[in-house]
Amino acid sequence: MSNKIKPSILPGFMELLPNEQLIFNDIASKVTGVYEQNGFLPMDTPVIEKEEILLAKSAGETEKQVYRIDNKDRKQVLRFDLTVPFSRFAAQYMGELTFPFKRYQLGKVYRGERNQKGRYREFYQCDVDIVGNGSLSIKNDAFVISMASKALKKIGLKTYKFQISNRKILTGILEGLKVQNMQEVMTLIDKYDKITEEQFLSDLNKFVGEDNAKTIDKVIKISGSSSEVIEGLKNIDVKNEMLDTGIEEVEEVIKYLKLFGVEDNEYAINLKIIRGLDYYTGTVFETLLIGNESYGSICSGGRYDNLAQNYTTSVLPGVGMSIGMTRLFFVLKEIGFIDKYQSSLNDKYLIIPIGDTFEYCAYILKKLLEKGKSAEIYFEEGKLKKKLTYANKLNIKYVILVGEDEVNNGEFDIKDMVTGEQKKLKLSSIDLEH
Amino acid sequence: MSNKIKPSILPGFMELLPNEQLIFNDIASKVTGVYEQNGFLPMDTPVIEKEEILLAKSAGETEKQVYRIDNKDRKQVLRFDLTVPFSRFAAQYMGELTFPFKRYQLGKVYRGERNQKGRYREFYQCDVDIVGNGSLSIKNDAFVISMASKALKKIGLKTYKFQISNRKILTGILEGLKVQNMQEVMTLIDKYDKITEEQFLSDLNKFVGEDNAKTIDKVIKISGSSSEVIEGLKNIDVKNEMLDTGIEEVEEVIKYLKLFGVEDNEYAINLKIIRGLDYYTGTVFETLLIGNESYGSICSGGRYDNLAQNYTTSVLPGVGMSIGMTRLFFVLKEIGFIDKYQSSLNDKYLIIPIGDTFEYCAYILKKLLEKGKSAEIYFEEGKLKKKLTYANKLNIKYVILVGEDEVNNGEFDIKDMVTGEQKKLKLSSIDLEH
Repeated sequence: MSNKIKPSILPGFMELLPNEQLIFNDIASKVTGVYEQNGFLPMDTPVIEKEEILLAKSAGETEKQVYRIDNKDRKQVLRFDLTVPFSRFAAQYMGELTFPFKRYQLGKVYRGERNQKGRYREFYQCDVDIVGNGSLSIKNDAFVISMASKALKKIGLKTYKFQISNRKILTGILEGLKVQNMQEVMTLIDKYDKITEEQFLSDLNKFVGEDNAKTIDKVIKISGSSSEVIEGLKNIDVKNEMLDTGIEEVEEVIKYLKLFGVEDNEYAINLKIIRGLDYYTGTVFETLLIGNESYGSICSGGRYDNLAQNYTTSVLPGVGMSIGMTRLFFVLKEIGFIDKYQSSLNDKYLIIPIGDTFEYCAYILKKLLEKGKSAEIYFEEGKLKKKLTYANKLNIKYVILVGEDEVNNGEFDIKDMVTGEQKKLKLSSIDLEH
Repeated sequence: MSNKIKPSILPGFMELLPNEQLIFNDIASKVTGVYEQNGFLPMDTPVIEKEEILLAKSAGETEKQVYRIDNKDRKQVLRFDLTVPFSRFAAQYMGELTFPFKRYQLGKVYRGERNQKGRYREFYQCDVDIVGNGSLSIKNDAFVISMASKALKKIGLKTYKFQISNRKILTGILEGLKVQNMQEVMTLIDKYDKITEEQFLSDLNKFVGEDNAKTIDKVIKISGSSSEVIEGLKNIDVKNEMLDTGIEEVEEVIKYLKLFGVEDNEYAINLKIIRGLDYYTGTVFETLLIGNESYGSICSGGRYDNLAQNYTTSVLPGVGMSIGMTRLFFVLKEIGFIDKYQSSLNDKYLIIPIGDTFEYCAYILKKLLEKGKSAEIYFEEGKLKKKLTYANKLNIKYVILVGEDEVNNGEFDIKDMVTGEQKKLKLSSIDLEH
């Protein structure tokens, strides 16, 4: 190994072996398939963009984590999410897009995060967003959540629960209570799950005084069915217009969720949900895995009043959500879901020539491919056992064996690698299902 | 627009509007679909890798074009092709892979090329490679070319012609002629199409003397059907073992191409084909568009004796090829292919509620989706004309109109936006084809 370089990748990057990559791709194509079927258009933007575009809005933590290209002439950075490029895209091509513009995007994004288990510096996000020109119906908020529901159902995941809120509710309450340091209180509620109850209450008292703290604490702890939570909210003794709008919007979202096929047991109203990013202005939601809540949200999003304000004076309200596909895959591995994953992949065939039968094998291959099957011929010399091992390792279900006797009799042997069953078939039967 | 940043992307990056992106994605999924059906496994590697890995082999021009990450602690670069990461991958996971290892990979690569029309700094490549552990049958060479044939046929492209050669032929001839400055001669032949005949002959004379120049010039100009070219080669008065092997290999490749369904008119043997990259050792091929040869090769590849020699002492011979998808899309646009492209996409439906009929529309949507149709409801308020324009711009074929009368009668109106034909159907007919 003297002058050889040890093959390795950078820390914090995910790389999969083929069997897992097949599952990753199958999951990704199911998710994007759902979005496409529901009218979302594909979008693809450069991984590298101008720094002044991607960092137009000073991004605090993000700015520290951004990957920069080493180039003296022009400041270029790697995208750290798909939302900022989308907002640039919407503003740039506004005249050529048809609104409401519904897009999905699957792509890699980059963040120089501290290296830790389950956190990646390069990861796939899969986003959907709907953006209107001037206005956008609240139905879209429910529709976007229903996309998350359909996507997760499609991949066979059942143990999730959407946590839905609307920022106008808490903002309205705080406005109604004439709380001055609203941002501070929102940040505190945002980290409710990460601190102790005692710490939370003590900070809240400090920020807003005892009376207001009691009211706020009561609000965020309202729980139960959606109608119970809405009922509870209506009974809170705070009068504020934004609060009323927030409650109305949640009611509308709940109503349309049902029409879009999202069942009652798939979601809860959770008034503690804020979503740190400050561009959300209405509906917000996260998605917890039941029994595995500690992994955090696997899918989240919400409504923003004005997507592209850094690039255009036009008002483009939108609603969207994002699944961190790389992180989702990691979590699904951790909880054992990937091991049991039912892939939608085709059964595969391996054709093994024994002796001088290659031409006959090529004919069988052609026939199988014409039928839409996945099939290949084993080309190399070697022991039959090695070839069967190849089939086993690659999860190939059917092995077709062709010796010279089979060619002379117009037949082939087919072995089911799962059941071990082997039978001899006529060549003409290749057009039938096995 | 006072404090607005003009939305734009960096020069040399391709970005598509939705209608073209749909076609790009359709082409890409047809190509990868062919590879998957034929037993290639998906692979995905990081876009950023360690510099010492990607530039293990001093890469001349490439090295100047590489994108580097601005990071003091560790030298990191963006991948400039998918072959080097593949060789690193094969060496790194050799113990866990099943050989022959057949992989495909679709991904973006980066080269800081001079900005010019049709040349991109970020572009998709789609590669297939087959790598063996120790040895690899020549059948794979033909198989890889047959993949290019199937992929191009699948997207409906008919005007291509593979230009096939084998490096052993020219190397053998030059060895047989005892030419010393072999590299110089190969480089000259490689640029045959870019210089004048006169310049070529004058340089060749200078490099190898008049007699040898005559022989070499005669060899590279042998043309005709594959059997005529092979016949012509056998009549060349040079005796060399490598030359004989080269001729044999080409004959084998031709034989198997036929078995893998590649027709005679899809390829020609072209002894001027070298492929600049020096890791090719046997079969080499390029792909020209008939009538549009000036765009250069749209798909090329070949055989290499040892893929991963920078990272392992194991010998991993392979054969592969690459389609530059971004460049291909550019060329297909230029020659008018994209305008006439027959997409394999589903017909789409747009459901337009008129009056208070949303719930009924949601039911129709559910039914269409269950049938596997692509469908969406138009959510926003507005004039019918605007909604029909939305359908037209998005190439939505069927518009379903639901007013209150239709709800009362259990019906809906359906309009074919291509023919203009409109009819009234019973709700129960939604389960039938239109």
